[in-house]
Amino acid sequence: MRRTHRCVQSESSESGSESDSDTSMRCISCREEYLPRDAGTCKECYVEAGETEEELKREIEDLKAKVTFLRLSSSLDHGNSSSSRSFTDVVLIASEDSATSPPVPAHKAVLVSRSPVFRAMLENEMEESRSGTIKISDISYDTLRTFVYYLYTAEACLDEQMACDLLVMSEKYQVKHLKSYCEKFLVTKLNPDNSLMTYAFAHQHNAKHVRDAALLQIIENMENVTKREEYMELVEKEPRLVVEIYEAYLSKQVNTAAAGTSTSKTC
Amino acid sequence: MRRTHRCVQSESSESGSESDSDTSMRCISCREEYLPRDAGTCKECYVEAGETEEELKREIEDLKAKVTFLRLSSSLDHGNSSSSRSFTDVVLIASEDSATSPPVPAHKAVLVSRSPVFRAMLENEMEESRSGTIKISDISYDTLRTFVYYLYTAEACLDEQMACDLLVMSEKYQVKHLKSYCEKFLVTKLNPDNSLMTYAFAHQHNAKHVRDAALLQIIENMENVTKREEYMELVEKEPRLVVEIYEAYLSKQVNTAAAGTSTSKTC
Repeated sequence: MRRTHRCVQSESSESGSESDSDTSMRCISCREEYLPRDAGTCKECYVEAGETEEELKREIEDLKAKVTFLRLSSSLDHGNSSSSRSFTDVVLIASEDSATSPPVPAHKAVLVSRSPVFRAMLENEMEESRSGTIKISDISYDTLRTFVYYLYTAEACLDEQMACDLLVMSEKYQVKHLKSYCEKFLVTKLNPDNSLMTYAFAHQHNAKHVRDAALLQIIENMENVTKREEYMELVEKEPRLVVEIYEAYLSKQVNTAAAGTSTSKTC
Repeated sequence: MRRTHRCVQSESSESGSESDSDTSMRCISCREEYLPRDAGTCKECYVEAGETEEELKREIEDLKAKVTFLRLSSSLDHGNSSSSRSFTDVVLIASEDSATSPPVPAHKAVLVSRSPVFRAMLENEMEESRSGTIKISDISYDTLRTFVYYLYTAEACLDEQMACDLLVMSEKYQVKHLKSYCEKFLVTKLNPDNSLMTYAFAHQHNAKHVRDAALLQIIENMENVTKREEYMELVEKEPRLVVEIYEAYLSKQVNTAAAGTSTSKTC
């Protein structure tokens, strides 16, 4: 039920014994001995926590089954052809690859359910609704396919480039769930080398979580960051953003100094 | 993070103190004192269990967001009219109420995605596919609406009658997720008064979980159950089912007796 690990060993314990000694006890979870000062829970709370964990795991299983049930088989599951068997009633075209790539078939009902932009487009007798064709500009065929697949399944296979491309799409079509999915992915990929470019990208596309995480990375590595080529470029192109970074850096310095002063006062 | 409850009190503890006494400790979860023999975990395992619980809760939140995203707005959300705005391409009619109740609009893509029976019906150029009308026999309008709503949202407001009606529908159209949902609900509603009828119903519709749970209820109350009117009816109409009940009852008696013998031997 729990991961096992090594607990602090009791110095005075009788090695290997399960005695009820006053000076050491055996942890019911990791089976190691420990001293009273390292005590965690009583037995009753241990049992209760185990039951809570089991309940949470059952809830997770139920929710996973619900997700599987609610996923729609996208027309993409059956190859690229706009098969009448999938009952699709609209196609999306990636304008970047429109000469070479096939249109991506979809269902109006799914698009309007996932995106308020598609809803407005398709419910208001606009050109796209009449023609049954939606042209998406500045996007590759692969990104479009992945985007549509996500609308049907809430799943996408991401790398950093795809996460950025999908974040842009999700911002444009207001698919909040996808945006949050891409943001979480990009935060996990943050490192001192990409933090500055990621920060600029996140700023441009209102990705607040990525922006905050990137800013934190940057101000923790200010000395190195300011020596990078991207820094010079950013100063040139987006000086206001650089000012924001310095403001955050200064604020951190002031807070650290204040915390230091209050600690020394307490001492 | 955890529910609090009353732990076993240490008899020798110094009341109210947080001392590191050798004979009593304070549970880090419920804050009560306890004796070494009632010890649960060490502190490290307590912290780890807390982190696990937090991780599971975050996973639950993520899955709930995914479920919300994947739910489709059913045409039923916008009233009963078969509005072209919902892009529906098929209607379902409850034959029981067909003269008085409106058809329920839906999307072929959703129906085929949720039910292999609808898939076969709609993908194979059968009458229903050509006409865009699916007649459902032996079902009320309310049940049909609830059934269709579930296909879009994985949600239904159940009472016992509705759970039975939907279980029949889910069996007929092979919507496993809904069947399991109804089964879970019916199991929670089992009591000595309805166990016999529920057992017969579950048997008829291959609802294994309900059937097993009902059987357990029955054999625990055999004396009372066999005095009930429904029992006489079942003997009359489904004697084989009654035989199965007695077989399960006998098996339980034999196991209990065997367990009793083995215990007395050990003693």
